[in-house]
Amino acid sequence: MLRYLGVDAGGTSTRAVLVGADGTCLGLGRAGSGNPVSSGPDLAAAQVLAASLQAVAAAGVRPTEVTGAVAAMAGARVLAEPGWLNEACHAGGLPVTFQLESDLHAAFCSASPAPAGYALVAGTGAIALRVAANEVDLVSDGIGWLLGDAGSGFWIGREVARAGLAALDGRTPPTALSRLLLTHLGLDPDPVGLIEGRSRSVQDAVDVLYRWRPVELAALAPLAFAATGDPAADRILAEAADALATTLGAVRTPQLTGPLVLAGSVLTRQPTMAERVHALAGGFDDPVFTDDGLVGAASLALRRHGVDVDRPVFDRLTATIGAARTS
Amino acid sequence: MLRYLGVDAGGTSTRAVLVGADGTCLGLGRAGSGNPVSSGPDLAAAQVLAASLQAVAAAGVRPTEVTGAVAAMAGARVLAEPGWLNEACHAGGLPVTFQLESDLHAAFCSASPAPAGYALVAGTGAIALRVAANEVDLVSDGIGWLLGDAGSGFWIGREVARAGLAALDGRTPPTALSRLLLTHLGLDPDPVGLIEGRSRSVQDAVDVLYRWRPVELAALAPLAFAATGDPAADRILAEAADALATTLGAVRTPQLTGPLVLAGSVLTRQPTMAERVHALAGGFDDPVFTDDGLVGAASLALRRHGVDVDRPVFDRLTATIGAARTS
Repeated sequence: MLRYLGVDAGGTSTRAVLVGADGTCLGLGRAGSGNPVSSGPDLAAAQVLAASLQAVAAAGVRPTEVTGAVAAMAGARVLAEPGWLNEACHAGGLPVTFQLESDLHAAFCSASPAPAGYALVAGTGAIALRVAANEVDLVSDGIGWLLGDAGSGFWIGREVARAGLAALDGRTPPTALSRLLLTHLGLDPDPVGLIEGRSRSVQDAVDVLYRWRPVELAALAPLAFAATGDPAADRILAEAADALATTLGAVRTPQLTGPLVLAGSVLTRQPTMAERVHALAGGFDDPVFTDDGLVGAASLALRRHGVDVDRPVFDRLTATIGAARTS
Repeated sequence: MLRYLGVDAGGTSTRAVLVGADGTCLGLGRAGSGNPVSSGPDLAAAQVLAASLQAVAAAGVRPTEVTGAVAAMAGARVLAEPGWLNEACHAGGLPVTFQLESDLHAAFCSASPAPAGYALVAGTGAIALRVAANEVDLVSDGIGWLLGDAGSGFWIGREVARAGLAALDGRTPPTALSRLLLTHLGLDPDPVGLIEGRSRSVQDAVDVLYRWRPVELAALAPLAFAATGDPAADRILAEAADALATTLGAVRTPQLTGPLVLAGSVLTRQPTMAERVHALAGGFDDPVFTDDGLVGAASLALRRHGVDVDRPVFDRLTATIGAARTS
């Protein structure tokens, strides 16, 4: 029997699944962060190995009985050289050789078995991709919090902080975001007094926020959605929708049709945002949502070893992995 | 004879001047960064001491013959407790006791002897202040690159990078900023090929720029001014002018009249920007420009020790410090 290992190695956790050639889930595994950029290659490889061995053991087979494997992860630059991962896995008793895939491609493949289409992922970052002939052939944005990621969770969160503080600072009309921001930071929401000519509330919030890593401002994004109806919040969300639609539009080719996959919390947890982006971008199929990468990693493990992932195989992957997870 | 020491302690260099009660420059001194936030208090105090002793020696007097002293520096929070500076100076043979002042106040006082008025400083950061009764009594913005500093050199530089990359990324129409950016970074200005679905030019620029400290993006601000006439550059400069005018407007009180001092490279090296901000803000006197803090530090050293800095004293400070610098 042929068995394939799909691994979704994320910055928070790493999930692994062993599947048969017909898409049936045989066993699952789970470990910590498997992202080599944030955790370093040694730790990341150890987590991928641990999750994989767990999935193999859960299936009741030996590590030597795995036919092929794919690991999906963020960081395009790591994909060229999988040596760091395979050396560690071989030394650790898992002799299969991993191919690396982009986590974004895995997200697309988690939502659809189509060989071509589009995806927009808006979580902390924001990126659009075009898939053709089972490969990501064009991306737009995804160039990080400082230089891009327009409309992302970070972008929205930073705008929430800037807008809330600008109003407290007297530069813009009052906004509900100020009070939401101060409360979120555990500060007195009623501004009192000046310190060195500046509102104490502003100074206190600034002191707290500069102790965060910049990307952590993404945690403030939900405040904009909570303040819907407030002019400043509405302006931020409208600009985010515009930016995301522009990013998505930049990868569209009229000749290439296929499903539109939307992923990431800004789109999957905010239906209104997803609707606006879809309407603004125009010309796309109705969106399919996903926040999963494991079905896609398993799909890619099958495909990269010559197994055709048609609709029945895809549906079997989705159903049996879903069932195994909740059991 | 009474002698007063004024010190302008900046992040790049520290300048000191010893002046008489009539505003005559008696001696100058210069040393390295005297900013306790960027250099640490020990190093900063050593530089303030070195520059001060140099000024005293240049005047041909002994360190015990200094009547009073003021040191102006960035970082409102350090101003409350000058112990770190005075202990080091006393131990180093300069028995005078420094009072600390904001570098922004010194900038205002470098341009005018008025006891009240306004200043807008737009260099790497951006802040507006109102001065009343010889004290800074209200500020707006100046809350740093991530959360504020709207319209600053950092803000303009970051927008240059974002706009240049967005166009290369296919998200916006072509802009002259892309080529200026790539050339500035020493990269091939003619985009060639894709890497992992992304323009190689974008990826190369991103790789370079994330190795910078974020505030260093301020170095890209001149590219916007160089590209005047380009729609993307013009949009950035118009938004910067709007933001700076808003920040300045936030500290204005119609009842309080006085000079408007403009400082920082975004305003002093870009006359068009200064004109636009002045026109947009409205209601202010014609601006006075300065990029100096030493005359202001000396003014404050006199004022804080009961010497009235009237127009003749101020003019004498400006003329004699200027002459001593160029001699």
